[in-house]
Amino acid sequence: MKIAVAQLNFHIGNFAQNTGKIIECINRSKAEGADLVVFSELSVTGYYPHDLLERKEFVEQSYEAILRISEQCIGIAAIVGGPSINPEPRGKKLFNSAFFMSDGAIQHVVNKSLLPTYDIFDEYRHFEPNRNFSVIDFQGKRLAITICEDLWDEQETQNEFGREKLYQVSPLKELSALNPDLVINLSASPFSYNQENWRKNILIKNARKYELPILYVNQVGAQTELIFDGGSFYLDKNGEIQEELNYFEEDFRIIDTEVSTQNLQPKAEYIEKIYQALVLGIRDYFGKMGFKKATLGLSGGIDSALVLVLAVEALGKENVRVLLMPSRFSSDHSIDDALQLADILDIQYEIIPIQPMVDSFEQSLSGVFSGLKEDIAEENIQARTRGILLMAISNKFGNILLNTTNKSECAVGYGTLYGDMNGGLSVLGDVYKTDIFKMSRWINRDRVIIPVNTITKPPSAELRPDQKDTDSLPDYEILDQILFGYIEMNLSPSEIIAKGFDEATVLRTVKMVNTNEYKRFQAPPILRVSSKAFGFGRRMPLVAKYS
Amino acid sequence: MKIAVAQLNFHIGNFAQNTGKIIECINRSKAEGADLVVFSELSVTGYYPHDLLERKEFVEQSYEAILRISEQCIGIAAIVGGPSINPEPRGKKLFNSAFFMSDGAIQHVVNKSLLPTYDIFDEYRHFEPNRNFSVIDFQGKRLAITICEDLWDEQETQNEFGREKLYQVSPLKELSALNPDLVINLSASPFSYNQENWRKNILIKNARKYELPILYVNQVGAQTELIFDGGSFYLDKNGEIQEELNYFEEDFRIIDTEVSTQNLQPKAEYIEKIYQALVLGIRDYFGKMGFKKATLGLSGGIDSALVLVLAVEALGKENVRVLLMPSRFSSDHSIDDALQLADILDIQYEIIPIQPMVDSFEQSLSGVFSGLKEDIAEENIQARTRGILLMAISNKFGNILLNTTNKSECAVGYGTLYGDMNGGLSVLGDVYKTDIFKMSRWINRDRVIIPVNTITKPPSAELRPDQKDTDSLPDYEILDQILFGYIEMNLSPSEIIAKGFDEATVLRTVKMVNTNEYKRFQAPPILRVSSKAFGFGRRMPLVAKYS
Repeated sequence: MKIAVAQLNFHIGNFAQNTGKIIECINRSKAEGADLVVFSELSVTGYYPHDLLERKEFVEQSYEAILRISEQCIGIAAIVGGPSINPEPRGKKLFNSAFFMSDGAIQHVVNKSLLPTYDIFDEYRHFEPNRNFSVIDFQGKRLAITICEDLWDEQETQNEFGREKLYQVSPLKELSALNPDLVINLSASPFSYNQENWRKNILIKNARKYELPILYVNQVGAQTELIFDGGSFYLDKNGEIQEELNYFEEDFRIIDTEVSTQNLQPKAEYIEKIYQALVLGIRDYFGKMGFKKATLGLSGGIDSALVLVLAVEALGKENVRVLLMPSRFSSDHSIDDALQLADILDIQYEIIPIQPMVDSFEQSLSGVFSGLKEDIAEENIQARTRGILLMAISNKFGNILLNTTNKSECAVGYGTLYGDMNGGLSVLGDVYKTDIFKMSRWINRDRVIIPVNTITKPPSAELRPDQKDTDSLPDYEILDQILFGYIEMNLSPSEIIAKGFDEATVLRTVKMVNTNEYKRFQAPPILRVSSKAFGFGRRMPLVAKYS
Repeated sequence: MKIAVAQLNFHIGNFAQNTGKIIECINRSKAEGADLVVFSELSVTGYYPHDLLERKEFVEQSYEAILRISEQCIGIAAIVGGPSINPEPRGKKLFNSAFFMSDGAIQHVVNKSLLPTYDIFDEYRHFEPNRNFSVIDFQGKRLAITICEDLWDEQETQNEFGREKLYQVSPLKELSALNPDLVINLSASPFSYNQENWRKNILIKNARKYELPILYVNQVGAQTELIFDGGSFYLDKNGEIQEELNYFEEDFRIIDTEVSTQNLQPKAEYIEKIYQALVLGIRDYFGKMGFKKATLGLSGGIDSALVLVLAVEALGKENVRVLLMPSRFSSDHSIDDALQLADILDIQYEIIPIQPMVDSFEQSLSGVFSGLKEDIAEENIQARTRGILLMAISNKFGNILLNTTNKSECAVGYGTLYGDMNGGLSVLGDVYKTDIFKMSRWINRDRVIIPVNTITKPPSAELRPDQKDTDSLPDYEILDQILFGYIEMNLSPSEIIAKGFDEATVLRTVKMVNTNEYKRFQAPPILRVSSKAFGFGRRMPLVAKYS
């Protein structure tokens, strides 16, 4: 059987565009001789529509789009993801469904059984799980259609407190009893650099266990924080990958289920994958929000340098302008380093020293602050003055402000709310500082783009004389390992200490993470590249006592 | 049987304090002759711990607290809410449980069957549902122990697209087959002014349907956004309320299940309830975060006046200081009105005109902005200058900034991000402007506290000459009805238009709501008083196309 794999970049709620793309792919599949074309999970709406699924008009528009698409399926079959109404009187009002279409109509509706409701997933919020299993006969083959998590009944977990079997049923066990010939899986699996092998391993394990070939069709493209990396693939019944589609871009391929090809994608280092993910994340955020231009503050430090490189790659140099905003605490090299990068990338920049405004604030506050010594209040005035200037550029010229906070800072609250935490999108909020150094060196692998001094000098916020990050934080090599243990691995402080880290450093770090939830509550959306990013995949109460 | 109802204010994760309160109540119940004392849902952890439930050390501390409490149950029984570990290999790792304790040990663990996963509830994220039903024999009575949503298998919904039966099972139907004498329900039901009767109606319906008395024990107190209003009650088998505990404060009462008392709380108007809820919300946010003092910007307008009154009531006048920050667009009456209120409430204030700083920004930006006309960029500089001044006071003196944005503004994005949208807590973000007028008049019912001119003058942001809110927004009487239809009732634009509102006004309003998700994404936590507040109970994608 010839099956077309349509790995597309959908836009949530943009039914006209999504439907257009799907119909175009159906026509192309037919023209190229495919028997069937498969799209990803919730393709007609884009994954994930969140509470738009609670809106009647949204579900109606979605169903109209499904009907329009089904009418195009003449001489070819298609499997398209979308919500369907639960006809039963009990349970949630919707199913997360795969519509099997042929002969110009919907022939079968298959509903998702396992609804991920953890981390960034909220599916039981909107959907009722399926409890009935059947296969579809098509051109002499018995197709077992599944949706994403349906194949994840046995989870790999990162620590012993997790659960391997999160669900009461194993859909593939149920389906395998019906003697299928092929498993088709419509997916929307977001990228995370430290889970890259989980997905393949899970599917390979399933193929081998049930001795069934599996066609896995993933969504590609970013939806706010979530970056879907594509990489759809076809596994034979021995669990060997026969076809693998591109990562981080749309792709289309017709596979022949009877032919062995072993057509795999080249392997890439995790730093390169994160780079590609972030570029896609920026590009899709702007493209789908209807924005073109970005701005950011270029400090001479490594974080803003990296964000600038990513933004130029994603949006083009003509669409990025930066502000240099030196203060009396800025070192000469900071300005030089920033200017050097702006020159290398050939982007528009302006220099606005912040001292006049900082002076004006301090003058106006001198009565109220009379007799009190300088502290964090004055440091924050500097950061917030820069925040105002950047937002003024943003408001005047329509350039969206990119936030440059990294994950290490974001974790410990090393940043100023309404100052350097401003922005429409946080580009590096899920990238630890040590990976920012690695990525910068990777960017410079052939020639210097990010000035060497930007990479080699000790990180500093430059909010007081001779300040260094290490004045108030552990070395990033240590800090990032502790943070990874606490956040990604969900280890307790005592487990982290047992790995050999200094007790006082661990407890101080954990306390900083816990007491800064309030800052992260107001942070911009963060492009997610890890298995546990700050944002809606990590929901912590604010008024809580941690110990 | 004599049952003590312990309606307490817990603090999430504060095991020492929660355990201390619970043990104190057990001792008091015993001293006062009760046979059994009942606490609210997840009492040992506080409701709701969110992803702290994923942390091993948190669940361990919770279980240790449960064991400590059980040891105190000598000569009395207690029912205490807390998480328990799921011993089965499949499913989520925790249950949401009620621990029945007597003779110094845990005797029974009853698990919650219906896990609300909608609006502000995320319970299936952390818990496995119970599927086995049994009653507990205690002193010759058969007790059916249930947890909150277990009695809500039939939901009342606000629109036809909702579902009356959200779950596959009816726990009370299962339990009633076991011939119980009494239903006990451990709850954590948050307050919302437009659902006030739902709760009682649901429970009365159950009591009558199954001809069983029901003891409903609710949590009281605020946890960040959520305000739990208490009001625990005992219903006889005819659905008559025999005892009703206080609202918005801790309460303790011993009820005799054999005696008819009809001891009800006085009825209050919804505006008064919202007022009480907000005062409790502010007080608990500060108390549980370990803060004492607040600040805010007093503009002479009604929103900041109301927030000040609420803050003084919640924290005491000695703990609130305000800034008056007039600009060249501030009218004389604004300053007079603000000063009058500060005088009436006898609170500390300072006046800092913003013009010098605004001039400094405009001067520094004059090169970049050269030749361009004034627009929103300059207006926002004013709002953001005020934001910096307030945060400087906050940082210097430790006064937490209270946000004064109302729900109508928050809905349509009429506010400046990093300016007047700043704050640690949004007090009025779930209160429509028309209700703010009502509440202000209610506050003035006996004597003028909020200056009459503050209430009667047309609302204005005063960011340009003679500006009025109605220059860019519909009249609040119209706007708030459209917003209520769209947000609380989840009506489609065409359904709102069908109710008689002007089509262009409805479409413009809905568009403003949809295109300002990005601003609300970075808003402070909002005290929730309605059935649908902005924040984590309303999850909308940012990069989506709405139509």
